[in-house]
Amino acid sequence: MPISLELKDRAAAGRICRLETPHGTVTTPTLLPVLNPNIQLISAKEMRRLFGAEMVITNSYVIRKHDDLRTHALEKGVHSLIDWDGPVMTDSGTFQQYVYGDVEVAPDEIVRFQRDIGVDVGTILDVFSTPERSYEEAREDLEETVRRAELSVAEKGDMALATTVQGGVYPILREEAARAVTPFGDLFPIGGVVPLMERQRYADLVRVIVGAKEGLPAGKPVHLFGCGHPMVFPLAAALGCDLFDSSAYAKYARDGRMIFADGTRMLAEMEESECLCPVCQTTPMAELKRLAEPQRMRLLAEHNLHVSFAELRRVRQSIREGTLWELVEQRATAHPSLQDAMKVLQEEPMKQWLERHEPISGSRAYRWTGPHSAHRPLLHRLHRRLQTRYQPPPDVETTVVLTEGRRPFSAGHRERIKDHLSRRAAHFIVDSYLGPVPIELDHVYPFAQSIVPDVLDPGSLTTARSVLSLFLDEVVRTQVLADGDELEDWTFHTAEDLYADPGLVLQHDKKEGPGIEAWDLDRLRMRATADLQFGRGAAKVLLGPWEGMEARVRFHRSKRLDKVRNVQVEGDHVLSLRAADGWFSLTADGARRLHAGFQTPKLRVVVQAESATFNAEGKNVMAPFVMDMDPELRPGDDCLVVDPDDRLVAHGRVILAPHEVGGFQRGLAVRVREGLGT
Amino acid sequence: MPISLELKDRAAAGRICRLETPHGTVTTPTLLPVLNPNIQLISAKEMRRLFGAEMVITNSYVIRKHDDLRTHALEKGVHSLIDWDGPVMTDSGTFQQYVYGDVEVAPDEIVRFQRDIGVDVGTILDVFSTPERSYEEAREDLEETVRRAELSVAEKGDMALATTVQGGVYPILREEAARAVTPFGDLFPIGGVVPLMERQRYADLVRVIVGAKEGLPAGKPVHLFGCGHPMVFPLAAALGCDLFDSSAYAKYARDGRMIFADGTRMLAEMEESECLCPVCQTTPMAELKRLAEPQRMRLLAEHNLHVSFAELRRVRQSIREGTLWELVEQRATAHPSLQDAMKVLQEEPMKQWLERHEPISGSRAYRWTGPHSAHRPLLHRLHRRLQTRYQPPPDVETTVVLTEGRRPFSAGHRERIKDHLSRRAAHFIVDSYLGPVPIELDHVYPFAQSIVPDVLDPGSLTTARSVLSLFLDEVVRTQVLADGDELEDWTFHTAEDLYADPGLVLQHDKKEGPGIEAWDLDRLRMRATADLQFGRGAAKVLLGPWEGMEARVRFHRSKRLDKVRNVQVEGDHVLSLRAADGWFSLTADGARRLHAGFQTPKLRVVVQAESATFNAEGKNVMAPFVMDMDPELRPGDDCLVVDPDDRLVAHGRVILAPHEVGGFQRGLAVRVREGLGT
Repeated sequence: MPISLELKDRAAAGRICRLETPHGTVTTPTLLPVLNPNIQLISAKEMRRLFGAEMVITNSYVIRKHDDLRTHALEKGVHSLIDWDGPVMTDSGTFQQYVYGDVEVAPDEIVRFQRDIGVDVGTILDVFSTPERSYEEAREDLEETVRRAELSVAEKGDMALATTVQGGVYPILREEAARAVTPFGDLFPIGGVVPLMERQRYADLVRVIVGAKEGLPAGKPVHLFGCGHPMVFPLAAALGCDLFDSSAYAKYARDGRMIFADGTRMLAEMEESECLCPVCQTTPMAELKRLAEPQRMRLLAEHNLHVSFAELRRVRQSIREGTLWELVEQRATAHPSLQDAMKVLQEEPMKQWLERHEPISGSRAYRWTGPHSAHRPLLHRLHRRLQTRYQPPPDVETTVVLTEGRRPFSAGHRERIKDHLSRRAAHFIVDSYLGPVPIELDHVYPFAQSIVPDVLDPGSLTTARSVLSLFLDEVVRTQVLADGDELEDWTFHTAEDLYADPGLVLQHDKKEGPGIEAWDLDRLRMRATADLQFGRGAAKVLLGPWEGMEARVRFHRSKRLDKVRNVQVEGDHVLSLRAADGWFSLTADGARRLHAGFQTPKLRVVVQAESATFNAEGKNVMAPFVMDMDPELRPGDDCLVVDPDDRLVAHGRVILAPHEVGGFQRGLAVRVREGLGT
Repeated sequence: MPISLELKDRAAAGRICRLETPHGTVTTPTLLPVLNPNIQLISAKEMRRLFGAEMVITNSYVIRKHDDLRTHALEKGVHSLIDWDGPVMTDSGTFQQYVYGDVEVAPDEIVRFQRDIGVDVGTILDVFSTPERSYEEAREDLEETVRRAELSVAEKGDMALATTVQGGVYPILREEAARAVTPFGDLFPIGGVVPLMERQRYADLVRVIVGAKEGLPAGKPVHLFGCGHPMVFPLAAALGCDLFDSSAYAKYARDGRMIFADGTRMLAEMEESECLCPVCQTTPMAELKRLAEPQRMRLLAEHNLHVSFAELRRVRQSIREGTLWELVEQRATAHPSLQDAMKVLQEEPMKQWLERHEPISGSRAYRWTGPHSAHRPLLHRLHRRLQTRYQPPPDVETTVVLTEGRRPFSAGHRERIKDHLSRRAAHFIVDSYLGPVPIELDHVYPFAQSIVPDVLDPGSLTTARSVLSLFLDEVVRTQVLADGDELEDWTFHTAEDLYADPGLVLQHDKKEGPGIEAWDLDRLRMRATADLQFGRGAAKVLLGPWEGMEARVRFHRSKRLDKVRNVQVEGDHVLSLRAADGWFSLTADGARRLHAGFQTPKLRVVVQAESATFNAEGKNVMAPFVMDMDPELRPGDDCLVVDPDDRLVAHGRVILAPHEVGGFQRGLAVRVREGLGT
């Protein structure tokens, strides 16, 4: 395998990976500056020194066309030609074909040539489908592309092959194309998208990227061909694009255009630049305008590259912090068409696709940026998990719906709520902007770790209200009230009402429950958190039934935070509550209880026998050894590591998503917390 | 007058000014770095060299307290003490009083001291009202502050005096305080706002700033005391704050916090920085973390200042481009409380206050960033002007409401619309996201010069629809349909419907109008534009009645753009249409017609007799010579310059707003296009 990809961190459907190549390692997402083999406005070495470029792309078709370049490349290799010892990717002439109509090279010939000049990643001569191509035409282009990909494999030698995904503006063809080229490629460019980006058809771009990603294996690098404007980087990276390439820096410089993270502006219109790059710091705009063409172009190109690479650093840092959606939403303000693209992501199948990748928590708060924030995949998942996993406490008769307020929701009126709960006088659900929050779940990410405006836009309010209404209808009613009971006791009140009218929720005399003790906020918390995190029934498996819980279960509290830290059941330490995100970390005893209580595949990551031995000793689970995974697990979830015979060997936190099993040939699949011995 | 302010450019209620001081000129909005006279983390000279600082602020109370500093300052002056030859402002100990409870200096004493050490702008020892102060308490603080301001005048000598506006969180008190200190001050800090910013109470901050601005004279510099985080700069600048001061750069650096335009992040959490500043470019984050405390603090302080000054350059550039609102909206995504602050600006009195300042067009398109974009003051004005100035063509029987589409709205189906119009079969109004657009006004700013999403958020849709509905109700009905007529002929159709069903709008047989010729898109355009720009009736004054217009009025078209360029009436060139924003430029003949046709004060800027002589020769109108201005004129509007006897002496474009008359002692009030001789 000439190149390989290893997942290091993730957010949204985006990721930070290590890409290994024969000429060194690249951290993705990254930008491959396009080098014109004829005129090097900025040399490859300068690309590294000035901007930190780790990989470059140049054009094999152009090299082949010029005798001197061809001879040099064939004799001393492409690395010598461009004076660069890092990884080199080459394009094949496809774009020239698109621009000029035809190229004078055969598909197998150009792959052979790329191999012969020693490039690290060579590209097939695919057929560029313009957005104007009809479904049938795009399908023909696609089939020809796949034929050429297959043909190219025989010629590639040790070179990694980039097999481009075409399919026009048709997501279904993109997915089909992706599946069809998968067997032949090592790296997958998404092609034919330049016209979409030039015309700001970002909504179409999103559909095309997601279509392609659906058909591609998770563990291979994906390249958005011709995407060189940083305005698109956060969105494209959030959809899982790893590589970008830019000749925009030079083209824009030629036209006197300056690239910024939120758009493009003409140098001619700039009186002063807000940019901190070395060019803008040392050259006043007036001086830049006066420079001779070549110097000005060189400096503008540098500015454009500085800004582009900076935005990729921002993208990577946001992935690490778990704030990539926030960045994407912020950048969407830069162009109305980006706002339309965001709306595409709110369609049901898109939300589901995104949700599969989304980690369960981030290291920073869920910060509201505007209407798009109501639709982040994390909320979508929480609403679904609440719908399918949450169980209200037994014998709820009165549900008080509290309005959005400061966090954690129980803090402002803890005593009052505790009192009502302990007397089972009422249960509380917060009508938060993030959706319904049962009061005992007010500490989990992102319910406690979120910053929202006081006043919400009408669209987001409607969204939140409809989720709440579904939750009240389906979860609270179907599981708590007996058949035929009416919902008349549901009342919407602010926290202030609780104080103003103490009798408000007390007028409902509690029926005696089935031998259940008084509610208690901590007991409610532990049960609800366990169910929501591990699946409905997990509370019973881990903590036993409600009956006798008081005697059986002991909480150890953190004195500093006054929060439950550890949960002991009949003397066994089964759970630890993480202060950072409010979710549980499993212990050995907890893992054993869940393993015994839940049938496979629930919570399981099944590993090959040869791996199990190591994992039982506490070693991490490596991606290639995973055979199967509970389809409900998500990155960051706690899991049970089992061998093929469902013997529990370890517990830990999942790094890959279930659909990524088999996709990665390197890196971790589960970070094991504890091996459970042999 | 020790200092003076001259308006150079404007957008929103913000502005770029030249501030003249005894030690040189400052371009505002700008940031005054706070220099600690004891420890200079970064020296004054470095502030200029590294960040382009033009003015600094230091603390006279601290200087006075330390013997060596006091002696040096008294003997050689404050400029020598801090080794800086540019303008120096000093604070008075108010903040120390707020933080430590009391200071050992009398209000008159500290002013005298500031004068004696030769500062350019000294500050009174005002009483800091915290947000917790009740209305009555804040009123007492305010009265004491005003008393001290009055007292300080006697001590200030030649020094400019900064008289701080207090008033707690009560906008009405802020306005009262502003009016009360106005007679005593040369520069006006808005004080007591640090706790609001620390607690992200940006909605309150907005009310406080606008309250103060309402009471202050337009032509004096306004300083937002203690505001040093760039996240607030665009919003505060858009509300007319000219000066900021920052010790934040140092305080944050001490805590290991890095400032960004969209918030703050801990160095400890940064793996890589997206920032392009010299610090981040040359020092990897890992290295920065390892540095010894003093070096790290110095570098973080530099980073913080780089970012802060960059954001102010961005603010100024946005003012020049007329895109300041866009920037403010984009930055509001950085914190939910900023989004709440934006909503305050959408309240009716705030919108009206903002609208008074807003120029009629910008040099770049109106670009939609999200729900806040539906509320920019420019739209508010256009809706009001449409409501009060627009008149539909005579004899409209059928109004077709077209849906939002590509711009200009008439372009996509020009022939069809032209045909319908010429046969008076139907009139068209576009239900655009920016509000109702009569088809003949589709070329004026920002209707043609706007970029909107395809799909709008529900809140903005509701806003647009309610404006349209009011317009249809009040403007179209009351003026066009006879009493008792029903609105049944109003139909909502997409442009596509026009093609699908050619009979759609043709089924209504046109009654014969009162001798009026067939409509014509260009004639409709000229009449509607004239009315909207100059006031209802302007079309009649400039172009004569509808009757005979075809014979009387000639259009000269630009061949290149195929648009009307000049309008000739009975041989007189009365109007030129600007290609950039679709509004008219007056000519001498046009100005004479409007002057004859409209009574004073309509469209007038009244200048003193001594100015009139110069203006008649084509010289610009300087601010101090303006006596009065039509309250309906707005920056960028064309106007008639008249002498006190209402003799027309020139025409030109207004730079000041009516409420700013008398406020500025320097600079232009009207850019005269043409003097009309003597």
